[in-house]
Amino acid sequence: MSVTLEQAEQLSKAAKEKANAIGVPMNIAIVDEGANLVAFHRMDNAWLGSIDIAIKKAKTARFFDMNSGEIGKLSQPGGPLYNIEHSNGGLISFPGGVVLKDGDGKIVGAIGVSGGSVDQDHEVASAGAEAL
Amino acid sequence: MSVTLEQAEQLSKAAKEKANAIGVPMNIAIVDEGANLVAFHRMDNAWLGSIDIAIKKAKTARFFDMNSGEIGKLSQPGGPLYNIEHSNGGLISFPGGVVLKDGDGKIVGAIGVSGGSVDQDHEVASAGAEAL
Amino acid sequence: MSVTLEQAEQLSKAAKEKANAIGVPMNIAIVDEGANLVAFHRMDNAWLGSIDIAIKKAKTARFFDMNSGEIGKLSQPGGPLYNIEHSNGGLISFPGGVVLKDGDGKIVGAIGVSGGSVDQDHEVASAGAEAL
Amino acid sequence: MSVTLEQAEQLSKAAKEKANAIGVPMNIAIVDEGANLVAFHRMDNAWLGSIDIAIKKAKTARFFDMNSGEIGKLSQPGGPLYNIEHSNGGLISFPGGVVLKDGDGKIVGAIGVSGGSVDQDHEVASAGAEAL
Repeated sequence: MSVTLEQAEQLSKAAKEKANAIGVPMNIAIVDEGANLVAFHRMDNAWLGSIDIAIKKAKTARFFDMNSGEIGKLSQPGGPLYNIEHSNGGLISFPGGVVLKDGDGKIVGAIGVSGGSVDQDHEVASAGAEAL
Repeated sequence: MSVTLEQAEQLSKAAKEKANAIGVPMNIAIVDEGANLVAFHRMDNAWLGSIDIAIKKAKTARFFDMNSGEIGKLSQPGGPLYNIEHSNGGLISFPGGVVLKDGDGKIVGAIGVSGGSVDQDHEVASAGAEAL
Repeated sequence: MSVTLEQAEQLSKAAKEKANAIGVPMNIAIVDEGANLVAFHRMDNAWLGSIDIAIKKAKTARFFDMNSGEIGKLSQPGGPLYNIEHSNGGLISFPGGVVLKDGDGKIVGAIGVSGGSVDQDHEVASAGAEAL
Repeated sequence: MSVTLEQAEQLSKAAKEKANAIGVPMNIAIVDEGANLVAFHRMDNAWLGSIDIAIKKAKTARFFDMNSGEIGKLSQPGGPLYNIEHSNGGLISFPGGVVLKDGDGKIVGAIGVSGGSVDQDHEVASAGAEAL
């Protein structure tokens, strides 16, 4: 099973509420099991450059079934996945991409958030992911 | 002024209702005055290949301030804009991209829809645009 | 010799005057002997999609040392250069790109204009080219 | 409101004067509120490779509403935004991109300069931005 549009809109709403609570306008993207975009929302005044980043964070998380920041730990100079960001049309490997799991722990997609600090991005993405 | 996220969600909802009414799952994208993505929704079971097409239709309409299908009339072999689709990272020049105008007739963005026949796509995009 | 920035600004000014005279806001690009951008101007309210097209028209004209519309005559289905637009990161092969020649008839660059009908684009580009 | 062409030409002129004052030929690009190119000038003998860099610096500054060099501080190995340059078709994250603000402090675009050392680029971009 893959995340549905109805679920994606729910997650996105939860993420937006968290973004409003911390006062940072965000770009929020949700991809399905096939790493294909299901929903995207740019909050008013959120960074334009974060449209692409939010989508790439969600894809990165689903591409490797781990949060985007985990990839970044491995892609540093000297690391085992050095410069993996060159693959797949461009990965984003810092925090803000979070995998989505159903009740059985099966991965059904991912959410990517961009617009604030990476800690804020991850917090908002996690709030979305938990709403599933 | 540019289309807001709240407006984009309204338009998208109106487009989805029309898509449900005609029984065709659609991809729906909305861009702002600067041709940057504001919102995107893929209805369950809508074509995967239409994610990119819906976004490109919206951008194409805003790029030239006319519905995407108007470009296609001019870009045919022998036509004045033959192969214009090679510009801007790829245009989509068949119907389904519709400009968004505010109450004063000023263009504030565009909506792009893909998932059915081009007539269905245009019908759904128009339903969205009229909801502004 | 290649077109200088001072010359490019002169040409661009002449093109803008013609654009104002016919009442169509234009995108105007000038490339040098090496087909590299020297100057670009987007008039207020000119089409966003024409930024890339104006630049590509200028490059196309210099790439083949002929006006962009000449390429389009040859790139039609069945023609000798069918779909040449796929080369060089995307050509634009309809009118609006005009080669720039010095007093001795040597090509020193090209001007590309986009924002109106192809006839208007060509007219404005020619007005620029003649100012050299 | 977005930066107009007339304003962009003013800024570009101020930047060119600074470039002449320090004796370094520069590439100067200005984008609007939507991160779309408004004006570009390459001074005679300025680096060809800096055409793209000047444009990308301007876009990067507007994409994240901060000077381009601020991104570079965060995108180093081990930094929170490591390899963010892979987004948006390629960012330039070293100095030379400066946001443009109107009298009320609202961001209306950005200027990007490339052709010298990053300190020189930033100095020239700042001279342009201050002319607004």
